[in-house]
Amino acid sequence: MDDNITDRITASFSAQTMMHTIGAELSEVSNGLVRITCPILEGTRQHQGFGHAGLTFSIGDSAAGYAALTMLPLDMEVVTAEIKLNLLAPARGDRLIATGRVIKAGKRLSVVTAEVHAEKDGVQTLIAILQGTMVPVPR
Amino acid sequence: MDDNITDRITASFSAQTMMHTIGAELSEVSNGLVRITCPILEGTRQHQGFGHAGLTFSIGDSAAGYAALTMLPLDMEVVTAEIKLNLLAPARGDRLIATGRVIKAGKRLSVVTAEVHAEKDGVQTLIAILQGTMVPVPR
Amino acid sequence: MDDNITDRITASFSAQTMMHTIGAELSEVSNGLVRITCPILEGTRQHQGFGHAGLTFSIGDSAAGYAALTMLPLDMEVVTAEIKLNLLAPARGDRLIATGRVIKAGKRLSVVTAEVHAEKDGVQTLIAILQGTMVPVPR
Amino acid sequence: MDDNITDRITASFSAQTMMHTIGAELSEVSNGLVRITCPILEGTRQHQGFGHAGLTFSIGDSAAGYAALTMLPLDMEVVTAEIKLNLLAPARGDRLIATGRVIKAGKRLSVVTAEVHAEKDGVQTLIAILQGTMVPVPR
Repeated sequence: MDDNITDRITASFSAQTMMHTIGAELSEVSNGLVRITCPILEGTRQHQGFGHAGLTFSIGDSAAGYAALTMLPLDMEVVTAEIKLNLLAPARGDRLIATGRVIKAGKRLSVVTAEVHAEKDGVQTLIAILQGTMVPVPR
Repeated sequence: MDDNITDRITASFSAQTMMHTIGAELSEVSNGLVRITCPILEGTRQHQGFGHAGLTFSIGDSAAGYAALTMLPLDMEVVTAEIKLNLLAPARGDRLIATGRVIKAGKRLSVVTAEVHAEKDGVQTLIAILQGTMVPVPR
Repeated sequence: MDDNITDRITASFSAQTMMHTIGAELSEVSNGLVRITCPILEGTRQHQGFGHAGLTFSIGDSAAGYAALTMLPLDMEVVTAEIKLNLLAPARGDRLIATGRVIKAGKRLSVVTAEVHAEKDGVQTLIAILQGTMVPVPR
Repeated sequence: MDDNITDRITASFSAQTMMHTIGAELSEVSNGLVRITCPILEGTRQHQGFGHAGLTFSIGDSAAGYAALTMLPLDMEVVTAEIKLNLLAPARGDRLIATGRVIKAGKRLSVVTAEVHAEKDGVQTLIAILQGTMVPVPR
């Protein structure tokens, strides 16, 4: 990976205050793949005590968006045009891990997916899959 | 509206710690329609300083889910099976307003939509639309 | 409606051989709204004898796409970037009616929705809702 | 694969008249995976002469649905609750190949994906990805 690309993504990630609020960390940046992890904090739960769908969405969407950004010129940013989430299991455990991937990079649109796993005692369970579209925009 | 239904939704909403974290409030509960509002806090922004897509998603998803719950027996809860979000404009302004509606209520699945508006100086702009499926589950 | 816009859409619709195959007709073109109807032919059914989801999709997607096209300059076409369909009821009856609407028209992307109704003995039932993104492209 | 499962899927596929109309064939049935192929007929095109999105959808949706059915008891059928399609490239070439996969099989809901490739002169290009939900129903 070009260090400039990693630096750009790290800087953009740090500027997202939502990522701080939910305790998220950027744990991997490679070409067309970005991984974000977060704990399931006391303050990010739904009514049954599991992680909120909004938590799962937030890291899944961000991982997918940054995956798209790894394949774009350095003077670009991305915004989410649309994204869809299917939930497979409750977000329960020690932490969540979102892995975003680029399916097709484009100048006008990039199509992306993400998987979100919940990890409990070292065992990972797939809890959500996402499929969406990112739009490159000038920084 | 049956007071019991409103009470149940208020209780469920209060149990969602994510709603507290993002400053969300339940502002309307009627038959097949629920409205949730929230500010755009310092801690819920994306890299450009606008409200994070995860914020828009969180209140849109919750409004849609509770709209489905207004049409279910009192001993049921709902969970999101899947939901899709199209973003139309940045989440900028004083607050966000999510309005969830039931398109079809069912025993096995309820199909729902939500609109999210951003309000600035009293003017509302539609910033997102959502379409999804809620699954009734026993409480 | 500008006659040129209606003519362009009629011409584009006629060029879609899929529309002929399924017996579809363009029944209304107005600003930001297009309606397409079709019978449920012997040859467009699923295994239970109802209209195939691909039939519902085909007219819903086309109605949504042409709705977007009503709001674009005459030298543009649209292609579907993505679209999602929730099915509410079986496609049973005499004919299907898809109504596409523009939620937000844009130079880069237009966000659209469609509803599909099945009509039986003059009574219409909502059987599907769609939400998607159309991309303007030069003709 | 249990022959009964394959037989059931072959029988259900044959009952879908839409599959005959578009020239589709069931080319692979294995546990959690179904593949359907079709030509791009003169009668299944869009306005630019490529395969219609409704064609791509029809085989993608059917492949995903039958993939879900491979993992259900023999007395069940599936219907599509919802499905989303992202289009990556025009459907051009000699034939389309849809591969449906089960991500999570469930008694109430199965989450599925599909990829659709276009093949031209033996070279396959990914033209669409789908993500959806199938509902098991008694036959």
